[in-house]
Amino acid sequence: MKLKFMILTLATAICSTAWAGKVVTDSVESKILGATVKYNVYLPTGFDECNKVYPVVYLLHGLYGSYADWAKQGGMQTVADELIASGEATEMIVIMPNAGHHDIHNVWNGYFNMPGWNYEDFFFQELIPEAESKYRGIGDKMHRAIMGLSMGGGGSTVYAQHHPDMFSSCYAMSAWLDQPVIDKDMKHTKFYHTCVSVQKNSTIAFVQNADAERVKQLQSVKWFFDCGDDDSLMELSVRIHKAMQEKKVKSELRIKNGVHNWEYWHLALRAALPFASRNFAK
Amino acid sequence: MKLKFMILTLATAICSTAWAGKVVTDSVESKILGATVKYNVYLPTGFDECNKVYPVVYLLHGLYGSYADWAKQGGMQTVADELIASGEATEMIVIMPNAGHHDIHNVWNGYFNMPGWNYEDFFFQELIPEAESKYRGIGDKMHRAIMGLSMGGGGSTVYAQHHPDMFSSCYAMSAWLDQPVIDKDMKHTKFYHTCVSVQKNSTIAFVQNADAERVKQLQSVKWFFDCGDDDSLMELSVRIHKAMQEKKVKSELRIKNGVHNWEYWHLALRAALPFASRNFAK
Amino acid sequence: MKLKFMILTLATAICSTAWAGKVVTDSVESKILGATVKYNVYLPTGFDECNKVYPVVYLLHGLYGSYADWAKQGGMQTVADELIASGEATEMIVIMPNAGHHDIHNVWNGYFNMPGWNYEDFFFQELIPEAESKYRGIGDKMHRAIMGLSMGGGGSTVYAQHHPDMFSSCYAMSAWLDQPVIDKDMKHTKFYHTCVSVQKNSTIAFVQNADAERVKQLQSVKWFFDCGDDDSLMELSVRIHKAMQEKKVKSELRIKNGVHNWEYWHLALRAALPFASRNFAK
Amino acid sequence: MKLKFMILTLATAICSTAWAGKVVTDSVESKILGATVKYNVYLPTGFDECNKVYPVVYLLHGLYGSYADWAKQGGMQTVADELIASGEATEMIVIMPNAGHHDIHNVWNGYFNMPGWNYEDFFFQELIPEAESKYRGIGDKMHRAIMGLSMGGGGSTVYAQHHPDMFSSCYAMSAWLDQPVIDKDMKHTKFYHTCVSVQKNSTIAFVQNADAERVKQLQSVKWFFDCGDDDSLMELSVRIHKAMQEKKVKSELRIKNGVHNWEYWHLALRAALPFASRNFAK
Repeated sequence: MKLKFMILTLATAICSTAWAGKVVTDSVESKILGATVKYNVYLPTGFDECNKVYPVVYLLHGLYGSYADWAKQGGMQTVADELIASGEATEMIVIMPNAGHHDIHNVWNGYFNMPGWNYEDFFFQELIPEAESKYRGIGDKMHRAIMGLSMGGGGSTVYAQHHPDMFSSCYAMSAWLDQPVIDKDMKHTKFYHTCVSVQKNSTIAFVQNADAERVKQLQSVKWFFDCGDDDSLMELSVRIHKAMQEKKVKSELRIKNGVHNWEYWHLALRAALPFASRNFAK
Repeated sequence: MKLKFMILTLATAICSTAWAGKVVTDSVESKILGATVKYNVYLPTGFDECNKVYPVVYLLHGLYGSYADWAKQGGMQTVADELIASGEATEMIVIMPNAGHHDIHNVWNGYFNMPGWNYEDFFFQELIPEAESKYRGIGDKMHRAIMGLSMGGGGSTVYAQHHPDMFSSCYAMSAWLDQPVIDKDMKHTKFYHTCVSVQKNSTIAFVQNADAERVKQLQSVKWFFDCGDDDSLMELSVRIHKAMQEKKVKSELRIKNGVHNWEYWHLALRAALPFASRNFAK
Repeated sequence: MKLKFMILTLATAICSTAWAGKVVTDSVESKILGATVKYNVYLPTGFDECNKVYPVVYLLHGLYGSYADWAKQGGMQTVADELIASGEATEMIVIMPNAGHHDIHNVWNGYFNMPGWNYEDFFFQELIPEAESKYRGIGDKMHRAIMGLSMGGGGSTVYAQHHPDMFSSCYAMSAWLDQPVIDKDMKHTKFYHTCVSVQKNSTIAFVQNADAERVKQLQSVKWFFDCGDDDSLMELSVRIHKAMQEKKVKSELRIKNGVHNWEYWHLALRAALPFASRNFAK
Repeated sequence: MKLKFMILTLATAICSTAWAGKVVTDSVESKILGATVKYNVYLPTGFDECNKVYPVVYLLHGLYGSYADWAKQGGMQTVADELIASGEATEMIVIMPNAGHHDIHNVWNGYFNMPGWNYEDFFFQELIPEAESKYRGIGDKMHRAIMGLSMGGGGSTVYAQHHPDMFSSCYAMSAWLDQPVIDKDMKHTKFYHTCVSVQKNSTIAFVQNADAERVKQLQSVKWFFDCGDDDSLMELSVRIHKAMQEKKVKSELRIKNGVHNWEYWHLALRAALPFASRNFAK
């Protein structure tokens, strides 16, 4: 057994990983929003040394979060690097846009259109075209997936429901999929408008009310709902899964040990990127 | 389904976890080393509100690391909190001592006795008694375990080999268990003395040379070796496992996907704390 | 590397496992039922060579099943052998009683008392005392657990609800925990009476209706509900978990990939025996 | 919650699985061997209702085994059905040929050419063309994988080494990859000739001796070695993984808890079919 150079390789193991991608920060000047919207983008190993085109994952943050969360708190780069290296995920770019901190009328904004803040329009008309053009996304349904946590899990689901021709799969983590009741006391909180928009965009009602044509569209997307057993949002994931089953839309549900935190989402990402990968066309 | 207060509980889920322990920093004034040695200690939920005594885990860092690594980079508090909450780990305190940054003769020091730096003596004569007394450790073999990464995985194994009456189990991650050959070129590097001490304390030779009496002692400890398949140290874990099997000392070996990094150790800790727990006497 | 005797050890590996327990078939002459009730019992390695006492797990089969199912179709012996060998489960005996095939009034019977077939009475007054006495069960709450699949998952939950002083933990797989509605068309099927008894023994209503005293008793048992995401009974596991959370009774819920079949229960058993083990007092 | 028809669906869940494939037994009249060689073939749901072509996996049994083992003892149909249903494996056919029980010169035969029994020639010249033609295999490297257990893990590795242009991936479980020493005492056993053929076909020496051209060919196959930590063959998997790493041939290694038995291989198959799937071209 040749362990002669073990120490040198130990040093190497600590310092370098030949297959490391990188995360860069960029932004879109949005005419629709009248604002500059930042995003992080993960680029896999070798991105700069080639002119290949890639499948694209949109990875959305949660309430009170920012575009930087998945890289800083979610360890997304390590997960992506390792899964690509082992072949469990395909080479891809991952776009992590900002969806908050833009105070319009003194409210916190989410992924949906609100008076004066048409974020969903921005996402589809400005962000996707610009980012995929700049970072060599392949640019079609079978090479695009969406996923996110909490409010971003709800956003992912709504986007894939509204645009089933745009995404091959959707993976919603600990997702805020509906807001059945809004308490009067909330009216003066900063995220009252977000609550109202989540209620209006109920993903569960969307499935329950789907006609045959819409059901067919929903069936063209692969759905995955993943939530912790001690997460207060858990029942929402169960309810949408049941609603989809009743409409014969195939969907995966996992309830694992955990709560509404980054430990959960970090582990969930290790399942989500392979799920997106196997639902891409090669 | 009562989702009336979901938003409030969503806020709660994000901000608080009722079952959160804490990590505090403390230190030992060591006469043996002539130095102040810092350590972090994880205290489970309710530690301050009771006078219970607890089993103790020693959790060791790696080369060039420090006492702060497991909390900062390894996310040890989240892992411990969640495993204790789910019952997979028992309530315990976790002590993470510093083993480096003390430059004697301009070298980096590890877990072993060196001229002028008798760290192993310090560990058993000063650290264990003082920390367990202060933080209510139960204080016997069947309520004490040791684990660590890389150089700390080697340190854990050596300590449990030298003091089998002190530990019920040992979990070594990506462990530096031996240094078969030392290159001449290393003589002038900062960690040459560490290499020499690892070679002198070869855990594999220790097992291979064990007589019947020592084998019996080794059998009183539960051993677990866990290493990534792309880690340059991987063969060492295989070799000690085989050496133990040949001596009829029961040992667990796992080679999982991964390299020599915190992603690996974070996930390994999720298995290590339950392993220690089920080998404690209740 | 000494591989000289590898072939011989290969043969050994195929033919023998030093740590293999065994499953034997026995029966109870029940006065309460006026019938002979068979059961299988798993005895761990070394049972015959010692006079140790053991913790006991009751492992219940499903509708239309028999005492022989877990050994024949569920591979329970291999799972128990391996988990005990690796230390993930403690040495234990596992009792698998028959709960069906006794046609009274031309119906299929379950785990509950019915006119002319007081199975629950039999279970607690005859089976437990006789089997634990004969096979050296320790015989108290902290060394007794119950688990089962489908109708047996419902039976386990009801038994632990009715006798919280008897079981330290309950692990219900794909469990038939309630029968909210009984269709008129079922009246003439063979398992109509079973349905009625499941409805009467609703585990969910039991939790929802529990007063403070009963809640305290429920809190003394560790609960685990595990069901496949494509199992038609899945919502029942979610509902009891939520009911327990509302009453501040700690409970674990897992929804994994799968349906109502032996592949699911075989894998579930690999989690259930460790769960029971860590909730035994040592 | 509509649970009205739960009992009916419970019955359905027990009795049927809409997405069940089937295993059929067939045979090849081999001129090369002068014998009829049986094989099982797994055909996915809908095979008979369409004229699609499929990727093909060859799944090999072990010493003293037969073509029927994987279906009877390994539960391969359930695993394949479920992984295809969940999307973790792609729709595929799985061919399980017989490699033993043909006593020539009173010996037990394996996967290699022996005097009077040129099984490897049969496999590539007769089995593959006939079976893939009959069962609509796509029939190229990027839609063909090989895997097997023990002697069949060795056979898989040798076949993929000899024919890297034929397989996109190879997954070897508990594999008999080499026979370093053959004891004199074995000369009169029934499997002496098998041992000799394994030694001659050492997969480890094959890698170590590979020149640049051969290394390039090996790099065109994805390799996975998976073995139990208490399996006497474990070191062989470690050694070939190291040999591949030294030649810069990417390879995965997993050492999990377990021995040389069907519990291990059943679980391994749950990882092996997804591995083959993600290395197929779509």
